[in-house]
Amino acid sequence: MRSEDTVFQPHYAVRSLQLGYLSPSRVPEAGALLVIVHEGQVLVDDRHSIFFPFASRQIPATDPVVGIGWVDDRPCYVVADPGTPAQPGTRFVGLRELFNHVDEESLGIAGRAVQVTEFLATRRFCGRCGAATALADHELSMVCPVCGQIEYPRLSPAIIVLIRDNDRCLLARSPRFPEGMYSVIAGFVEPGETIEHAVHREVQEEVGVRIRSVQYWGSQPWPFPNSLMIGFTAEYAGGQIAIDNREIEAAAWFGRDRLPRLPGPTSIAYALINDFLKEGR
Amino acid sequence: MRSEDTVFQPHYAVRSLQLGYLSPSRVPEAGALLVIVHEGQVLVDDRHSIFFPFASRQIPATDPVVGIGWVDDRPCYVVADPGTPAQPGTRFVGLRELFNHVDEESLGIAGRAVQVTEFLATRRFCGRCGAATALADHELSMVCPVCGQIEYPRLSPAIIVLIRDNDRCLLARSPRFPEGMYSVIAGFVEPGETIEHAVHREVQEEVGVRIRSVQYWGSQPWPFPNSLMIGFTAEYAGGQIAIDNREIEAAAWFGRDRLPRLPGPTSIAYALINDFLKEGR
Repeated sequence: MRSEDTVFQPHYAVRSLQLGYLSPSRVPEAGALLVIVHEGQVLVDDRHSIFFPFASRQIPATDPVVGIGWVDDRPCYVVADPGTPAQPGTRFVGLRELFNHVDEESLGIAGRAVQVTEFLATRRFCGRCGAATALADHELSMVCPVCGQIEYPRLSPAIIVLIRDNDRCLLARSPRFPEGMYSVIAGFVEPGETIEHAVHREVQEEVGVRIRSVQYWGSQPWPFPNSLMIGFTAEYAGGQIAIDNREIEAAAWFGRDRLPRLPGPTSIAYALINDFLKEGR
Repeated sequence: MRSEDTVFQPHYAVRSLQLGYLSPSRVPEAGALLVIVHEGQVLVDDRHSIFFPFASRQIPATDPVVGIGWVDDRPCYVVADPGTPAQPGTRFVGLRELFNHVDEESLGIAGRAVQVTEFLATRRFCGRCGAATALADHELSMVCPVCGQIEYPRLSPAIIVLIRDNDRCLLARSPRFPEGMYSVIAGFVEPGETIEHAVHREVQEEVGVRIRSVQYWGSQPWPFPNSLMIGFTAEYAGGQIAIDNREIEAAAWFGRDRLPRLPGPTSIAYALINDFLKEGR
């Protein structure tokens, strides 16, 4: 078990943001901040700041403006930009690109902002009866005025597990990965199973080996999109690698001295592999 | 850290069910099983079995029939019953009542069946554009034929944490609880935070104390509705109990010898408290 002090803190973990919900009927006070999102990308200025003074921007009355919390005690709102041309010196950038340019707090807020606007865009109509929904005043939810159905932002729990066998670890690659890149095994938790059951099931489905000593390692919010990564380590317990050639196109054991191309250093996948590397030193 | 062998296995954990998705265009083979759900309740016969032979039941062509996996190698389907009168000797019962009557495997499947039918009922229309959706053929998802939006069953990760201070534990009660009942602290993980952040935040919000040594304990699927409980233990680190009188209406420290009424024995909440009790023996 990792102690609390060493629990993985991703590069973009939310730190001084106080999560909350500011009623859409509340008038933003002086000093309020605005994060502007367009199709999953976040507006940044020429110094890569994602925060704009609320007052500096004319918000069309038709745009939903949602308060997502407080940044250093300043209320912070997010708005989905309809795609008007960005002001000079500003541009929209994707979350992955942001990784390299902004501090961890900004990344956490950017991820939350993208997820909130995605939630608003995908819950405009009631999935049960088809009526137009409305934003609630007291919490971040969309309510159907006809049938009463309430929708909250989705967050999908997924497991991610490093399998080791003494000085080797098992890595696999998805056809979606950049060329030559391998990573640890990951997959979504299914309704009706424990997290540990999901770990065993995904490992069985994706690489076909048996594992034991499944131990919790740490967690990471992963907004690509709406995921919560729940990290584990496990020991190899037997069986030959067998892949499905669909979700996984290659898998192999790798020693510490001959690792393939790995996921980016801000991911929990990299942190799990890095922990394994450090043990060998 | 609890070893893998002792990780909490809830009373209704899925055991021999192989999760999967059987295409709705596939004709159920001989021996297929059917689980019948009506408004969150599951049909049982007079021996409390939730499985009915597929052929024994006339399925109206308008009902969605979804294959949710294999039970002892027999394909298992679920159907949302429109509320026709149950056959003699059968009745619909809620999941909580089922706890006391059926084996763990059946409970896991019943929970999954209720969540799948709830998913089908609440994703009939596209939340983005309002068009009628259709069940996918290759995976359990509802697809919008107009804008392409894809929806999967929701599973909401929530933390649940036992806070201890030597021989006492901190329990609280929600206004929604049965009279006199107290439980451990719980709440949903927010987009953009780690699980550990959610533990600290929920404890701060609900009882106002500081904690340390947050350690993963185990997990439980909790279909009331669509939740995945992620259990932790934590040590009290300071501060007075302060409640919001809204989500929490009372909270206090309890010694092992004077515990209040507790949640049911099949819950991870009870298992966390029971672990604390066992340490004192």
